[in-house]
Amino acid sequence: MRHILIIGAGRSASSLIKYLLDKSEQENLHLTIGDLSLELAEKKTNNHPRATAIAFDIHNEAQRKAEIQKADIVISMLPAFLHIEVAKDCITYKKHMVTASYISDAMQELNEAAIANNLVFMNEIGLDPGIDHMSAMKVLDEIREKNGNVILFESFCGGLVAPESDTNLWNYKFTWNPRNVVLAGQGGAAKFIQEGTYKYIPYHKLFRRTEFLEVEGYGRFEGYANRDSLKYRSVYGLDNALTVFRGTIRRVGYSRAWDMFVQLGMTDDSYAIDNSETMNYREFVNLFLPYHPTDSVEIKLRHVLKIDQDDVVWDKLLELDLFNANKIIGLKNATPAQILEKILTDSWTLEPDDKDMIVMYHKFGYEVNGEKKQIDATMVCIGDDQTYTSMAKTVGLPVAMATLQILNGNITTPGVQLPLNKEVYLPILKELEEYGVIFKEKDVPYKGYK
Amino acid sequence: MRHILIIGAGRSASSLIKYLLDKSEQENLHLTIGDLSLELAEKKTNNHPRATAIAFDIHNEAQRKAEIQKADIVISMLPAFLHIEVAKDCITYKKHMVTASYISDAMQELNEAAIANNLVFMNEIGLDPGIDHMSAMKVLDEIREKNGNVILFESFCGGLVAPESDTNLWNYKFTWNPRNVVLAGQGGAAKFIQEGTYKYIPYHKLFRRTEFLEVEGYGRFEGYANRDSLKYRSVYGLDNALTVFRGTIRRVGYSRAWDMFVQLGMTDDSYAIDNSETMNYREFVNLFLPYHPTDSVEIKLRHVLKIDQDDVVWDKLLELDLFNANKIIGLKNATPAQILEKILTDSWTLEPDDKDMIVMYHKFGYEVNGEKKQIDATMVCIGDDQTYTSMAKTVGLPVAMATLQILNGNITTPGVQLPLNKEVYLPILKELEEYGVIFKEKDVPYKGYK
Repeated sequence: MRHILIIGAGRSASSLIKYLLDKSEQENLHLTIGDLSLELAEKKTNNHPRATAIAFDIHNEAQRKAEIQKADIVISMLPAFLHIEVAKDCITYKKHMVTASYISDAMQELNEAAIANNLVFMNEIGLDPGIDHMSAMKVLDEIREKNGNVILFESFCGGLVAPESDTNLWNYKFTWNPRNVVLAGQGGAAKFIQEGTYKYIPYHKLFRRTEFLEVEGYGRFEGYANRDSLKYRSVYGLDNALTVFRGTIRRVGYSRAWDMFVQLGMTDDSYAIDNSETMNYREFVNLFLPYHPTDSVEIKLRHVLKIDQDDVVWDKLLELDLFNANKIIGLKNATPAQILEKILTDSWTLEPDDKDMIVMYHKFGYEVNGEKKQIDATMVCIGDDQTYTSMAKTVGLPVAMATLQILNGNITTPGVQLPLNKEVYLPILKELEEYGVIFKEKDVPYKGYK
Repeated sequence: MRHILIIGAGRSASSLIKYLLDKSEQENLHLTIGDLSLELAEKKTNNHPRATAIAFDIHNEAQRKAEIQKADIVISMLPAFLHIEVAKDCITYKKHMVTASYISDAMQELNEAAIANNLVFMNEIGLDPGIDHMSAMKVLDEIREKNGNVILFESFCGGLVAPESDTNLWNYKFTWNPRNVVLAGQGGAAKFIQEGTYKYIPYHKLFRRTEFLEVEGYGRFEGYANRDSLKYRSVYGLDNALTVFRGTIRRVGYSRAWDMFVQLGMTDDSYAIDNSETMNYREFVNLFLPYHPTDSVEIKLRHVLKIDQDDVVWDKLLELDLFNANKIIGLKNATPAQILEKILTDSWTLEPDDKDMIVMYHKFGYEVNGEKKQIDATMVCIGDDQTYTSMAKTVGLPVAMATLQILNGNITTPGVQLPLNKEVYLPILKELEEYGVIFKEKDVPYKGYK
């Protein structure tokens, strides 16, 4: 019997746990599922004979060490900053570890110790980061194997609502952490490289510098730049590529409408509004508009944002009931961003039968034998329901698959790892296809700039 | 003989030192002028028999204590964060102290000790803060003495170039720290109160929400909101005023043109540009524009900022030589804000004969006997030359005057003080008039909103 300790039984753990439980007989696995909420852990084990649910507090050192000691491999689905204590114990007790999170500096520091103990510490093996790494590296390696020289790499990902549940003017609902959606793009200029020169987009211009993306069968999307497109430039081997860009996918028109909130200042999370608890939605909007004794909030907003009479962005605001003087915010000392999140949550919460959708789009431009070529790779994944969402599947399944591959000795390279090697991405991308996570690769005419 | 220790002999100390030297015979004063640069201190003493220049290092504790011990009163013209060690020594050796800086938390903590030792620690007695406090409190007190209820207070101040030296399209030159001009308004939304409700302006809208100000004899100016208009709301007794607003004065059109830099992202000081040292001005501009293989930087900028063919803002950019591919930035790892400062310094540096100008504008709206009235108070001060600038006069003279008033026992209220009391503002405002710092107060029709 191989013991897997899973720490954290939240939303992103559903598909992960189901996958491992489904394989538990055949692979002779036992799962211990720990969460601060025993109830949540029990719900996920669902009385499965090969699973044990426990109340688990990461800060309870004795319990943490005891449970890690009993396991053969540990999966941490905790928020990223909590992984490190688990990781240190995994070194102490010589256990492999898997996470879907970005590698922190603290985690990276364990690299030598992991290697010395021949342990695989696999990170960033969820969706983004995760499937993006694997699907990109697969095509990049293939291009290089035929002596192609990669000159352009653009990669986009977005969590959206599935077409059958796409019922509002924004073509958007919250399928993940709403706060991250409201704060998206903040914290500094977006940086990328285009035809050999750096480009910078300040936050207040970010949502007006989008590009369109066509996905066969799903129509048109748009992408806006991520803050740092260059994080993986070196590890992907793209130091000589002329264009490196990463972005976030939304349905067409979302960004131009979202920009209204940015321009008004409603996405600001840096200060609290004193009387926010008793303030109504209309008063909130008026905070960002000049005073006038008689002009309406509506006409002032139209004027400030220069919204024409026949512009659909106006209907998008009305749909959110933004001008309602009877809806009270009800949040104490809230920031504009928190209030906006609350207003959006009224409209953008998934209905019980709604499904979510993940869309990923990569463009690879390369030169081979003096000719410029391009491959576009796209992936669309639709959620089954609100437990096995496309987000839970795409984040959790690669984690689960990697865990089993490590247990079975198929992934062996020790150290603090990203899923950039064939040993990792080939079997996992292949198996993901059985679960509907399928990349369509297509040769297209080179659409670069030079 | 009374001994005055002046620490810091920089630009803002010129008029301050001249005032005290001119009075030194009559008032029996001796000045010790200390600066890190002995040369600078000597230049300011100018061999005056009643002045001694010394090389002075604030971090040399023995010297600091010795010099403070010898003085009757200490003026610190150091950067604000350096006052505190001086202030502590002033408590120890029971010396009065004067600064033109905002009261820091550390300074405020010395209030009780200053009171216990019967010491006056006068702060914020320069221009802004300083003359703004005094001139506002004078009118506010007068309104209250005739039982007026203040309902509106707006206060603007700006350091500009004098009309006779106003030779560029921006109607602006650097008359003080250029870095502060480039970073003006950053660090959070501007907050003020208008007709009883809070209003917030995000940084990227700040320069498009200006209002016009007419100053007799000097024409039209514009004002944009300061970050925190409400800092002095309570100490001015304005908690019940419906409108409280503070702003910065520029010539008309400056803000709309400056907004181009904000929109492009050129005022960002949060990241460094890798190859800034060898980059030229044109390449710098292009960092903030989308790539295109043939379109010029000029047409891309016009398009992004929607600048019409006949818009004068375009000529303002040309005047700065912003598109010059032969001018090299020459600053290593500079932020966009640092690079912009460098480009502007090429054009906005005062010529040897140029003079500067300070403009202050207060509006006081009040209700008396059921009637709404308004007083506007304006002050314009022109510099004599590049030593006795209007900035040096308006910052330094009130400091010097307050120092003498304290020495002569006319200002006696002990503790960490602001110049809000009649004891302080009446004699100083009166004496400032002799030096050309004259407020014109005028009854005008109430221009508030309700």
